[in-house]
This record gives sequence, structure tokens and C-alpha cells, in this order.
Amino acid sequence: MDLTDIGIEEGQKYEGIYTTMSRDGVKNAAPIGIVCKGKDKLGCRLFVGTTTLKNIMETRKYVVNITFDPINFANSTIGNLDIEEFTDDEDIAILKNAEAYVICDVTDIRKMDPIKDHVTSNGEAYIISSDVVKIVKNNPCAKALNRGVFALLECLTNYTRLDLVSKEQQDYFVGRFNENNRMIKRVSGPDTIKAMEILKKSMIEKGFDVE
Amino acid sequence: MDLTDIGIEEGQKYEGIYTTMSRDGVKNAAPIGIVCKGKDKLGCRLFVGTTTLKNIMETRKYVVNITFDPINFANSTIGNLDIEEFTDDEDIAILKNAEAYVICDVTDIRKMDPIKDHVTSNGEAYIISSDVVKIVKNNPCAKALNRGVFALLECLTNYTRLDLVSKEQQDYFVGRFNENNRMIKRVSGPDTIKAMEILKKSMIEKGFDVE
Repeated sequence: MDLTDIGIEEGQKYEGIYTTMSRDGVKNAAPIGIVCKGKDKLGCRLFVGTTTLKNIMETRKYVVNITFDPINFANSTIGNLDIEEFTDDEDIAILKNAEAYVICDVTDIRKMDPIKDHVTSNGEAYIISSDVVKIVKNNPCAKALNRGVFALLECLTNYTRLDLVSKEQQDYFVGRFNENNRMIKRVSGPDTIKAMEILKKSMIEKGFDVE
Repeated sequence: MDLTDIGIEEGQKYEGIYTTMSRDGVKNAAPIGIVCKGKDKLGCRLFVGTTTLKNIMETRKYVVNITFDPINFANSTIGNLDIEEFTDDEDIAILKNAEAYVICDVTDIRKMDPIKDHVTSNGEAYIISSDVVKIVKNNPCAKALNRGVFALLECLTNYTRLDLVSKEQQDYFVGRFNENNRMIKRVSGPDTIKAMEILKKSMIEKGFDVE
């Protein structure tokens, strides 16, 4: 049982679709960040009011689906997925077309300090900790999505255009750099963080006021 | 010879590090977009003044390296890579730690109409067309980076926060949606484009003025 098999490394964050089932058997899917806390430990943050939190409190079980399916990501964000998107299993919710999935048993549900920028839930959220009980790879090359490298690529593309654009557009690029850098520090490994430092140093040398 | 082996599909765009050699044997690396024009055909756009364009005009050959190495991406953007990052080959420039690489023979170099937003080169650019002569996978799971899914993920995350943020932040999210949607139409396949349509429809229903 080793999450690095599907590209999930300790201390980094990934994107996946969580599938859960209510006590009375209704399946749900929602895209949620994946926090890796060890080679067989995962965690996540869930807001009060979400179906995923309700289901996890009822069953203390969830599945993290590793998938690149853009339509499932979109549909599960704006609502739920059609029942046809799930496997036929009656006791567990799993996405049919997942590249891989991870079955998790909840070990701890802990109330967080309120998060002030999250209005509708009054900032009420819970931190879920869990043990990985099974990893299944439908695609031997399955690898979880980490947004860091792409945030870096955006910054690199913007960098090559810094000298070519208006002051207003430069300010926008500096803002994007700062925002992407914050995200990368939160989700990425040391190499991506170092790459941003290299870029930052060069931007400062060019006279840009990055954070 | 089939680029789909490394996740490169016709009509989509990817990110890679191009390695070239000058007539007198100096190796160069630069991150450049990859345009797929068929299962054994690639293309790219190169601006006047870049080392990659000069070298390709001299040798009519280049290598597209599929890599996720953030430090190589950063260093090759702000300058060149250390010679140790290349293989020992004397007649061709290839990155040592590439997940895969594609050797390309140039079939056509065509001047583009000037691109008005690219100041330093006076917008002078060339479209390079090439035949793939070899695909080498150092990692059997190598797959080229396409930025589309990540642009979608950003939009999905922003979407879930639309109702919770200030008007100013909402405007920023709408701007990011429009920008990401333009990028996705340029680089992605039909599923990611459709996912953005699903999201757009839902944003319009919520009263947001997306393009």
C-alpha cells in the first residue's frame, strides 16, 4: 500500500473526485483536494453543508478517484454525476472510468477553526484524516494531478512576455506570479518551489516587485 | 511512429523543452509549445531572435523533450541549461532526464504574418513543420503536458467560490474564466472544451457575464 505508486507524495496536494455513499445508499461525487499525509494516509478539508461531509460522517468511508475526465470534473462541481458514471457496486461508490481509486477509512473527523473567507458555511469546516485501505489501478500509468507544475508553466510563459507588454499587463503577470507562488508553496514539492525561486530572482533582477 | 503513445493528439497543444544544436555544435534548450499536426507530424511557432530558430534554420533538426522537471523548465526559460543536463551525444542535443523525446526533421519553415503583440521581434515569427523520425520513451508512462485540464481545474475551484467572494473577486474569476476558456479552445481536446461549456452555462444561469 504505497500512494507514491500513483504519484501521490507526502506533503503535496492533488486533485481528485471523491465518491461517497449516504447511509441509505445514495452515491455522490465531488471534486476535492487530496492532502497526502504519508504513504498510506490521506486527508482533506470539507465544508459544512456538503454532501461529501454528511456521507463521510454517516459511513466513515470514502473513495478518492484519480481521473483526468474533464466532463466528470465539471458535472460533479456543478451538481452530482449520473448513476451510470459509477460502478455497479452496491456497497461502495466508485467512478467507472477512474484511472485509479483509493479506498479510505476515516480515522478522525476534527472541527477546524472557522475559515473567514468561506461565507455560506460560516467558515465551518472539518479536517478528515484517513487510512488508505486499498489502491486499485485501472491504468498502470495512473498518476494523480498536481496543479503546481502547470502554475509554474503559466508563470514561465508570462515571464517570456514581461518585456513585451503594457504596464497594466505586467502588473497582472506579477499578481498571477504571486498567486501561483502561494499555490505552489501549498501544493507542490521542493523542485517546483525551487523553480519558482529561480524565476522570482530573475524577475526581481528585471525590476519587478514580486512577493 | 505514433505520437499518441506519449499522449500527443492531433489538433492539441502541449508543453515541452526543445533542444537544438548550432552548426558549430553548441547545445541549447528552451521551453516551447508543441503543436500536433498528425500522428507523426509536429509543428511550432518560433520568434526571430531566438536561439532555437537560428539553430533549426542551420540544422533543420530539433528534439522535443517530454519532461516534468520544473527546474529545467525554469532554467531554460531564463537562460540555457548546463551542459550536464544534456546527454553525451555529440551530434544531437537531448535532455538526460527526459521522460521521452521526439526527434524531428524539419520539412518547412514559413514566415508568419506579423504578430502585433510581440514587440521585441517586431512580431516576426516562423512556423516550423516537421516529420517525427524517432520517439524514445525513457519512462514507459511518459505523457506530454497539456495545460487544458489544469486551466479547467482552476475554473472549477473558482466556480465553487463565486457566491462567497466580493464583487471585485468575482470579476477577477470571470476574467480568469474567459482567459482559461480561450486557452483551452487553443490547446485542448473536445472533452475539456465541452467541460468548459457546462461550466459556462451554469455561470450564466447564476448571472455571471462570461464570454
